[in-house]
Amino acid sequence: MSQGFVLWFTGLSGSGKTTVSQAVVPILRERGVKIEVLDGDIVRTNLSKGLGFSKEDRDTNILRVGFVANLLARNGLAGCCACISPYTAIRDTVRRQVEADGGVFIEVFMDTPLDACIQRDPKGLYKKALAGEIKQFTGIDDPYEAPTDPEIRLQTVDTTPEQCAQQILAVLEERGLIPSV
Amino acid sequence: MSQGFVLWFTGLSGSGKTTVSQAVVPILRERGVKIEVLDGDIVRTNLSKGLGFSKEDRDTNILRVGFVANLLARNGLAGCCACISPYTAIRDTVRRQVEADGGVFIEVFMDTPLDACIQRDPKGLYKKALAGEIKQFTGIDDPYEAPTDPEIRLQTVDTTPEQCAQQILAVLEERGLIPSV
Repeated sequence: MSQGFVLWFTGLSGSGKTTVSQAVVPILRERGVKIEVLDGDIVRTNLSKGLGFSKEDRDTNILRVGFVANLLARNGLAGCCACISPYTAIRDTVRRQVEADGGVFIEVFMDTPLDACIQRDPKGLYKKALAGEIKQFTGIDDPYEAPTDPEIRLQTVDTTPEQCAQQILAVLEERGLIPSV
Repeated sequence: MSQGFVLWFTGLSGSGKTTVSQAVVPILRERGVKIEVLDGDIVRTNLSKGLGFSKEDRDTNILRVGFVANLLARNGLAGCCACISPYTAIRDTVRRQVEADGGVFIEVFMDTPLDACIQRDPKGLYKKALAGEIKQFTGIDDPYEAPTDPEIRLQTVDTTPEQCAQQILAVLEERGLIPSV
């Protein structure tokens, strides 16, 4: 059985979580990693219908995604999670669960400045949040607690998603989670 | 990669879903099957906090459990689900999803008469439901749609959990989902 792991992207809306995960996951699959993607849309549809954006609901959502990712990791598969996951404590709770069951937790911090995210605004959500039409929007009127010691920190302003993917692959190789090529 | 499958127990509260799953899962693990259990308590804690017992919430719950079981099955693992899952249509939706992704869906109908379940009443819930203290209780004031063509039908009144487990193992062997011993 291969060593299961969780690739946990965290970062602001528009920071590139989904984009980078979409760049790296196909490469991982080509290399034989069985990986399932749990990103925002998949999670909202299949796991978290009905949850809102209060701290409690956000925490419930993250624990739920972490529970599923851990089921995969502890069976030698990989889970790729791309959720804002703004709170350090709950990210660390998921990490502890994964590690307690023998999995490896790789936190990928999308270190994209808020200004850049606002400029990208791929879903037009910042515009609405800044206009007060959406409340509890992370980075605007809801907190984002950046990881202090993530396994991987990605700058996305002057690098391409492919370059970010290569950085992730290098770390996974270093840690023996995927074979070197 | 081994053929993934979902062992889906359905039946009234007290029909023996959890008991029989607890009898069969350790044997499956001994035989090398990587199987994760998603039964009522695990699901309520980790996946479905906040859901109630309306038809809509029940359906959401079942789809959610089915989503997770399918993630396992389509990666060659097994999911063992033990939820009342009273509605045929939604059980069949899960079946179709699992089969569409290449997994095998084994529906295990706990064919325990309501009277026997009421007599067992392991959690004291029937007593409360019959007294009107719990509403929307399956079999009392909420429907249970029995499967018409389940892969496995278990009588639990005059058989032990171990005998039920053997019946399940026999079917899984027959279908090539586990090696014969």
